[in-house]
Amino acid sequence: MGAVGTLVLLRHGESVWNAENLFTGWVDVPLSAKGEAEARRGGELLRDAGLLPDVLHTSLLRRAISTANIALDVADRHWIPVRRDWRLNERHYGALQGKNKKQTLETYGEEQFMLWRRSYDTPPPPIEPGSEFSQDTDPRYADLGPHAPLTECLKDVVARLLPYWESAIVPDLRAGRTVLVAAHGNSLRALVKHLDGVSDEAIAKLNIPTGIPLRYDLTDNLEPVTPGGVYLDPEAAKDAIQAVANQGR
Amino acid sequence: MGAVGTLVLLRHGESVWNAENLFTGWVDVPLSAKGEAEARRGGELLRDAGLLPDVLHTSLLRRAISTANIALDVADRHWIPVRRDWRLNERHYGALQGKNKKQTLETYGEEQFMLWRRSYDTPPPPIEPGSEFSQDTDPRYADLGPHAPLTECLKDVVARLLPYWESAIVPDLRAGRTVLVAAHGNSLRALVKHLDGVSDEAIAKLNIPTGIPLRYDLTDNLEPVTPGGVYLDPEAAKDAIQAVANQGR
Repeated sequence: MGAVGTLVLLRHGESVWNAENLFTGWVDVPLSAKGEAEARRGGELLRDAGLLPDVLHTSLLRRAISTANIALDVADRHWIPVRRDWRLNERHYGALQGKNKKQTLETYGEEQFMLWRRSYDTPPPPIEPGSEFSQDTDPRYADLGPHAPLTECLKDVVARLLPYWESAIVPDLRAGRTVLVAAHGNSLRALVKHLDGVSDEAIAKLNIPTGIPLRYDLTDNLEPVTPGGVYLDPEAAKDAIQAVANQGR
Repeated sequence: MGAVGTLVLLRHGESVWNAENLFTGWVDVPLSAKGEAEARRGGELLRDAGLLPDVLHTSLLRRAISTANIALDVADRHWIPVRRDWRLNERHYGALQGKNKKQTLETYGEEQFMLWRRSYDTPPPPIEPGSEFSQDTDPRYADLGPHAPLTECLKDVVARLLPYWESAIVPDLRAGRTVLVAAHGNSLRALVKHLDGVSDEAIAKLNIPTGIPLRYDLTDNLEPVTPGGVYLDPEAAKDAIQAVANQGR
């Protein structure tokens, strides 16, 4: 296994918009009560496994930040260093942000719906700047200026995530740290695609459940010792993966 | 006023041990429900004043970290960068940690009690390593090794705080940022002593209320434009300062 630290991925718990079946993307909605409970459970799993993070990386979105805060408090690791970056954000869902998933499915049909949700390189239409669910005046993205995305496909997420992986997360792993990445369905799929060398086609079918820490031990070459990693609660992960696949139905 | 940013000090809300009138120091107790409400109120004051932090500095103790998390979430600034350091911790209360304040007053008498609580340079007896409320096996202080304090007077807090002020907080201020420091009664007294040039004698009578942001605008020389700073809720601050002065009675 070499001297490389351990990577732990944690997808945020249910948000109030997950519960309402809305496309969320970069809209900064809070966790639901169920999501907070999932975060606590995630912290219990870390604590009970003795898998104690030395450093936290989060997106700039409340649902990932709150999930990490809650889980780390439960695991008595609330005091570790924190790094945040927009490159860990959820995929920007473009003009679909704020739209109901079921209605979108009915309006556009199964094929277009699944293309936007699961194709590797077809982004939804861009969001209109100044519209209700746009982030163009959000101070946290002010530094991005005209480079702030208006929509993203998973390929775009991979492209903006990898520089952060290389420049910020890998150095922590090389320092032997246990690194917790608290992020989102699609930013974590992008990372898993890179780690496991998942093909552009196969990544469409890969779902990551919420609130269940996913552990990757890595070789010196940053390759997973166990492809796909190891969920701290494999049974619950299996059930949850099936549930995510059924979203929007 | 020059180009220097704005400093905002926030003392954590009531902890469960404040509520039980116990000496806390480095023991990592959580906020009480009242303390969580104070933190929310602190966030509302920041939000309503439009005083929006660009960066957060906290101690390594849960009550300060939770206060910051709650307040920043309310102010919609949960996404700002975070820096944590033991140098912002509460004063280490030595052998008094975990002891009841009223009992300590009765056992040792008013003079000794006030000497430990308020003298500038008389620390309580050191805590016994391995005892119930010692931090000698706490992983967050492992890097300190034999330099970890076993007790501290306020003078000790000033001495360990100032290197962090100079090396970590001042650079953020010089970069023009609004800096939130979420910390403790005595680490904030130490900082105010330095900022306002309070004498060793006068600092004994200076109390900082919980949960009310204290704003310091600073000159180029890092001197307060308004000595003593400005509380965002001056009336509540006045009442709370009186209540703190009565603790242990």
